[in-house]
Amino acid sequence: MDFTPSEKTLQYRKQLIAFMREHIEPIEADYHKENRRLNGDANWREWQVPPAVEALKAKAKAAGLWNLFLPDEKLGAGLSTLEYAPLAEVMGHSLLAPEIFNCNAPDTGNMEVLYHFGSDAQREQWLTPLLNGDIRSVFCMTEPDVASSDATNMQARIVADGDEVVITGRKWWSTGLGHPNAKFAIVMGLTDPDAAKHQRHSMVIVPLDTPGVTIERMLPAFGEYDAPYGHGEVLFDQVRVPKTNVIGNLGDGFKIAQGRLGPGRIHHCMRAIGAAEKALQLFMRRGQERIAFGKPLLQLNGNLERVADMRIAIDQARLLTFYAAWKIDQVGAMKALAEISAIKVVAPNVLQQVVDEAIQLFGGAGMSHDTPLTGLFAMARALRIADGPDAVHRNTIAKVELAKYREA
Amino acid sequence: MDFTPSEKTLQYRKQLIAFMREHIEPIEADYHKENRRLNGDANWREWQVPPAVEALKAKAKAAGLWNLFLPDEKLGAGLSTLEYAPLAEVMGHSLLAPEIFNCNAPDTGNMEVLYHFGSDAQREQWLTPLLNGDIRSVFCMTEPDVASSDATNMQARIVADGDEVVITGRKWWSTGLGHPNAKFAIVMGLTDPDAAKHQRHSMVIVPLDTPGVTIERMLPAFGEYDAPYGHGEVLFDQVRVPKTNVIGNLGDGFKIAQGRLGPGRIHHCMRAIGAAEKALQLFMRRGQERIAFGKPLLQLNGNLERVADMRIAIDQARLLTFYAAWKIDQVGAMKALAEISAIKVVAPNVLQQVVDEAIQLFGGAGMSHDTPLTGLFAMARALRIADGPDAVHRNTIAKVELAKYREA
Amino acid sequence: MDFTPSEKTLQYRKQLIAFMREHIEPIEADYHKENRRLNGDANWREWQVPPAVEALKAKAKAAGLWNLFLPDEKLGAGLSTLEYAPLAEVMGHSLLAPEIFNCNAPDTGNMEVLYHFGSDAQREQWLTPLLNGDIRSVFCMTEPDVASSDATNMQARIVADGDEVVITGRKWWSTGLGHPNAKFAIVMGLTDPDAAKHQRHSMVIVPLDTPGVTIERMLPAFGEYDAPYGHGEVLFDQVRVPKTNVIGNLGDGFKIAQGRLGPGRIHHCMRAIGAAEKALQLFMRRGQERIAFGKPLLQLNGNLERVADMRIAIDQARLLTFYAAWKIDQVGAMKALAEISAIKVVAPNVLQQVVDEAIQLFGGAGMSHDTPLTGLFAMARALRIADGPDAVHRNTIAKVELAKYREA
Amino acid sequence: MDFTPSEKTLQYRKQLIAFMREHIEPIEADYHKENRRLNGDANWREWQVPPAVEALKAKAKAAGLWNLFLPDEKLGAGLSTLEYAPLAEVMGHSLLAPEIFNCNAPDTGNMEVLYHFGSDAQREQWLTPLLNGDIRSVFCMTEPDVASSDATNMQARIVADGDEVVITGRKWWSTGLGHPNAKFAIVMGLTDPDAAKHQRHSMVIVPLDTPGVTIERMLPAFGEYDAPYGHGEVLFDQVRVPKTNVIGNLGDGFKIAQGRLGPGRIHHCMRAIGAAEKALQLFMRRGQERIAFGKPLLQLNGNLERVADMRIAIDQARLLTFYAAWKIDQVGAMKALAEISAIKVVAPNVLQQVVDEAIQLFGGAGMSHDTPLTGLFAMARALRIADGPDAVHRNTIAKVELAKYREA
Repeated sequence: MDFTPSEKTLQYRKQLIAFMREHIEPIEADYHKENRRLNGDANWREWQVPPAVEALKAKAKAAGLWNLFLPDEKLGAGLSTLEYAPLAEVMGHSLLAPEIFNCNAPDTGNMEVLYHFGSDAQREQWLTPLLNGDIRSVFCMTEPDVASSDATNMQARIVADGDEVVITGRKWWSTGLGHPNAKFAIVMGLTDPDAAKHQRHSMVIVPLDTPGVTIERMLPAFGEYDAPYGHGEVLFDQVRVPKTNVIGNLGDGFKIAQGRLGPGRIHHCMRAIGAAEKALQLFMRRGQERIAFGKPLLQLNGNLERVADMRIAIDQARLLTFYAAWKIDQVGAMKALAEISAIKVVAPNVLQQVVDEAIQLFGGAGMSHDTPLTGLFAMARALRIADGPDAVHRNTIAKVELAKYREA
Repeated sequence: MDFTPSEKTLQYRKQLIAFMREHIEPIEADYHKENRRLNGDANWREWQVPPAVEALKAKAKAAGLWNLFLPDEKLGAGLSTLEYAPLAEVMGHSLLAPEIFNCNAPDTGNMEVLYHFGSDAQREQWLTPLLNGDIRSVFCMTEPDVASSDATNMQARIVADGDEVVITGRKWWSTGLGHPNAKFAIVMGLTDPDAAKHQRHSMVIVPLDTPGVTIERMLPAFGEYDAPYGHGEVLFDQVRVPKTNVIGNLGDGFKIAQGRLGPGRIHHCMRAIGAAEKALQLFMRRGQERIAFGKPLLQLNGNLERVADMRIAIDQARLLTFYAAWKIDQVGAMKALAEISAIKVVAPNVLQQVVDEAIQLFGGAGMSHDTPLTGLFAMARALRIADGPDAVHRNTIAKVELAKYREA
Repeated sequence: MDFTPSEKTLQYRKQLIAFMREHIEPIEADYHKENRRLNGDANWREWQVPPAVEALKAKAKAAGLWNLFLPDEKLGAGLSTLEYAPLAEVMGHSLLAPEIFNCNAPDTGNMEVLYHFGSDAQREQWLTPLLNGDIRSVFCMTEPDVASSDATNMQARIVADGDEVVITGRKWWSTGLGHPNAKFAIVMGLTDPDAAKHQRHSMVIVPLDTPGVTIERMLPAFGEYDAPYGHGEVLFDQVRVPKTNVIGNLGDGFKIAQGRLGPGRIHHCMRAIGAAEKALQLFMRRGQERIAFGKPLLQLNGNLERVADMRIAIDQARLLTFYAAWKIDQVGAMKALAEISAIKVVAPNVLQQVVDEAIQLFGGAGMSHDTPLTGLFAMARALRIADGPDAVHRNTIAKVELAKYREA
Repeated sequence: MDFTPSEKTLQYRKQLIAFMREHIEPIEADYHKENRRLNGDANWREWQVPPAVEALKAKAKAAGLWNLFLPDEKLGAGLSTLEYAPLAEVMGHSLLAPEIFNCNAPDTGNMEVLYHFGSDAQREQWLTPLLNGDIRSVFCMTEPDVASSDATNMQARIVADGDEVVITGRKWWSTGLGHPNAKFAIVMGLTDPDAAKHQRHSMVIVPLDTPGVTIERMLPAFGEYDAPYGHGEVLFDQVRVPKTNVIGNLGDGFKIAQGRLGPGRIHHCMRAIGAAEKALQLFMRRGQERIAFGKPLLQLNGNLERVADMRIAIDQARLLTFYAAWKIDQVGAMKALAEISAIKVVAPNVLQQVVDEAIQLFGGAGMSHDTPLTGLFAMARALRIADGPDAVHRNTIAKVELAKYREA
């Protein structure tokens, strides 16, 4: 056993921290103000990317801090899941950072899908510009009319018709739908209701300008619209795309989804842990500076106990996520199901708890946009639902535990 | 001991429930949409009251469901704190309801202050139109530059100068500042730093059109602006008002604040309990309707245990608040300090917990504006900070407990 | 609504407090030492009642502080469930007190059963000496071989055979089985497996000296044997008693059990609340006296927050139990099912939590017999299981909640 | 980073598991019964080691499963702290196992002290027979009259007098004092109240048959006496031993204590984690076998969620402890203070929580001696106090966190 990160990780980590300190942190508050000014709830059809972003992306790319999430040595940095994990944590310190390094959801997941399962033509047309950061993409899975926690509930249809497939249905919480550069969505839907349970669904690439695609609205998460990405509700009304847009074969949807979710959950959780560190940092600084009843807030009541509990919770979440990443690298995501589910429960809940404490210490300022805290809270709260709610993941863990006793 | 509410309470409760079912519930979703359309973050200087509101206020007034919070038999309904408590709970089922019945914060608290401590002239000029629902008002206490959890930190100055007093300072989280009908603020500030600790501060009535009053912005609470009320940040720059605008005498600030906070906290907490009942109701209905893994959500995992825990928590919070209200009525707010602090800790936390569970059950819908849940969450989260954060109230309770041992 | 206890309650409460201060508290530590010396694990067949007990019982009887639990005006004190509740709390301050006032489990429950359902002959033979405190009794329900949380699992048989009934089966956690004065057990068992679900079981009086009754051992609860009562395991091997020993009719078992459990749970919970007050009192005193790092323990870390949380939890538990008692008195135990289940969850958990905190503050002393804390802990821990585990009661509450939506 | 244990660890782990399955598990229930029969509260001066123990110790020694805790290649197994950690976990599955492998507290800690700080003579006289398992030892630190959570409170005196030192004072919770083979205690006490804060105390070896040493009683922890070790209270009345019995020099007490506590806390915590795995195993098995309401208990209510939460908590505790062990090995215990404190908070609390759940599932059986659960509970509860209560460790963690901000 050894807890020392790899040399490559240490090197990239150092560079990332320096880059963020030098280029991202100084502009962050202004970026968020500008973003709010430009991109409101009402004008979502005219959202734009605040100008600072593209400049920083170019800088990051030039510095080699680009596509670090992708294990491929040429297209990415050749890092294992475990090697990338500490880098995702660093990016998690800022809500803006992941996209600067082309490591933001849902594009990373989509790139992984295309990388692992896409045809050469699909990769050339869609993966390459994504890897270049020239376009953005969307992932359409969740539906408003059914409990999407049970993926087999999915009602949207993807049906073959000659050389085409026809997509019909309604999706929501499709992240990135509001982005001005979003060019396509990967849509998951039901193809064959009579096939074996996990061979019924397909994934297909749908360019957003295809006739029949109607983006209806952007959804707020705790009042935050995450512009210029946004979480949209979209109607697919008899949308036709060539069969060559199907990823893998019809019926491969679940297989692809599983592959997508392993490393992706590591990324999400590590960013959540980074965000929790950020929130704790804000807690510590505010707690030392503000004075009440003659003492710094940190010295009052049980605040130091809270510091200890937050430190413990964050460190435990990090180690568990490292462990899950290691297990993915060793035996694959399917054999690390319980560990992946465990971090999916732990990390967002730790983040929510730490942010809640920080908000409480900040008082009114914590609830406003004067701190990043409500943004981090919305991130935590959404993560407890996205990619499977806590309850579903607890169930997975319990089933794996039960299986140990059946084997024995 | 007897847990039966008074006849008057039962009668008003019946009427309120009927009124809300008939007039408020049917328009609520539309009201919130319209309110969001009219009153956004960017246009807060042009906020308007959605038209439905004034019509409903007139109806409520005609039905005698008006100013029920005020113990005065003529101006209000002559209800004790305990008698009013169950009515505040009913109003808490809807974020819109309190203002329809002229029972919304901060106007109720301001009306109480003027009722108990105002001069005849102050009552005529400000209390009467408030009681009529013709104008709205603001309460300015919290400041951005100090830890307002320790009220003695307050830096805004209220200084006598001949026949006038001069107000200088910055306040925020001043609820109602964005309301188009808001006419005046009650401002609390420091008058004499050398006086005894609780005789240093004063309260003064400041018409919002007085020169030197600059409303700078509205603050979001978890992304919600609570239009058309709003929580504002305001600068008082050498603002001069006649000395007759001082409530009571200079130096009476704390005494008045104490009186303001007793029944007001009962109102807040009972509304929070009503809101928690609403969230539980949404939980139950969604849990029965939505199906996952072949069962209604309620039948899955530990959801029924959660129902039990929420039911227990809400019922306990209600009983504790009734008890605190009863104690205020029996011995006055000053001798019910520990009980008032206890409900101030309990009720908002119960609401936050119940709403969080409901959001989790609803999934994405729960985070959006398609349900009232994030609004209720913001209410809970703000209440844990407003009027003293949890930590300050826990301290009060502990001090009262300690005092029992010193006496003995 | 009114939270003032009745005059009778106030009067008895005052007397009880005085009696306990004068007669019980001074001897309590010695009593427990003596009890441990006399009555160990190994010698349970020779357990004796420490001599101080009978003298105090006589004093309590003479003072009229006797059988206060029984609503009957002649045999008891004529107090309602709600009127008795605050008195049970006072008795809960001492593990020794309930028996001094002839208000201890399981005798109270057995007296209630005989009072409400017993024949005249049964009352004369068994109820009268119990009311006099001359004998003790046992209640046999739980069985080692099945999950007794589901009472319909019960396997012991009670079968009619001519003028007799024959009892066969194994029971455990039968409280009082070790008491030298225990003369009989009320045994519950299965009579007719084919009858309607709640008409299958019967209750029968079994004198402990009946052939076929074999007490096999006393069971420790967290190492405590609760001598001289004890919790025993007992075998009924073809035990024959006259049919006149059946309480009510064969098949009435569940009906009687339900009646037994309503007020009994109020008693248990109020004693638990009294015990929690005792533990908090010990916490406060130790926390003021002991010094670490230059301060009284109470002033360290989050200890004052803990005091507040404990005070809140205890007060909420008390109010909820009063409310449940009031509802039993108003509409009967069957219509107060959810409330009774709620306190059954709340009160023991509050006690466990408060005692755990007190033990933590006391350190090593708290784990030993130098304080009553581990005894109170065992009481709390046992109560979370006895009379239905938490999970069963949460289920009941959830079912009642669900029923509200089916009605509507 | 790599989570694979070392080859040596894997090999020893396999052997240990096999040994425990073959030799310890089969006799465990009988051992505990026999131990209770032989060694009660009342006869502690005549306690004996149940005969099975010495035979198993001989077997373990022959198998090379002996003194694995000691890093020394010759005297122990040459394992690092991290390498030994998984082995301590395995031993934690049984309360009996640690002593069979000569890896039980407090002897391990005492052996480490003598190994690192003892003179050659001390090692020969005391370390050698301890390593052989021929004698047992005691560690005397905690005192009844002061808050021992603040070690500087310690009142016992160790004063030089010519060639001797004189020990005076009272200690309790001195583990091992009841053991028939206990030959000496390492006693910590105050030598020079005027020295620098951490140079005031000394450690000295006191043979238990030295005049003036009076063992007064054994203390129960939640009713468990942990015979034949026991936790004793002992009076040192002008006890004289030669100065050569001082470990290191007078004034070295704190320095030695610190060294003692690093690896020792890893051992304690890993055993606690092993115990938690044992409790979870019992939970799973009982939950599958017992039926209530027509289903295995595991399928009822939120039990599967509890399984998930327990699995997560145990895995997180284990990873954190491995990390702390790794850090001790890398940079020494003094620089791993926060990590050591973190596991000291986490592991016992996880154990307590898991055991509490298991007891709840077992019902009455769980509270009795029919399962090892109350023994494991007492272990958890004691660990939350021993070697510094949770609050002290949370404080340490918070201080280390604060220091990061002062440095920056």
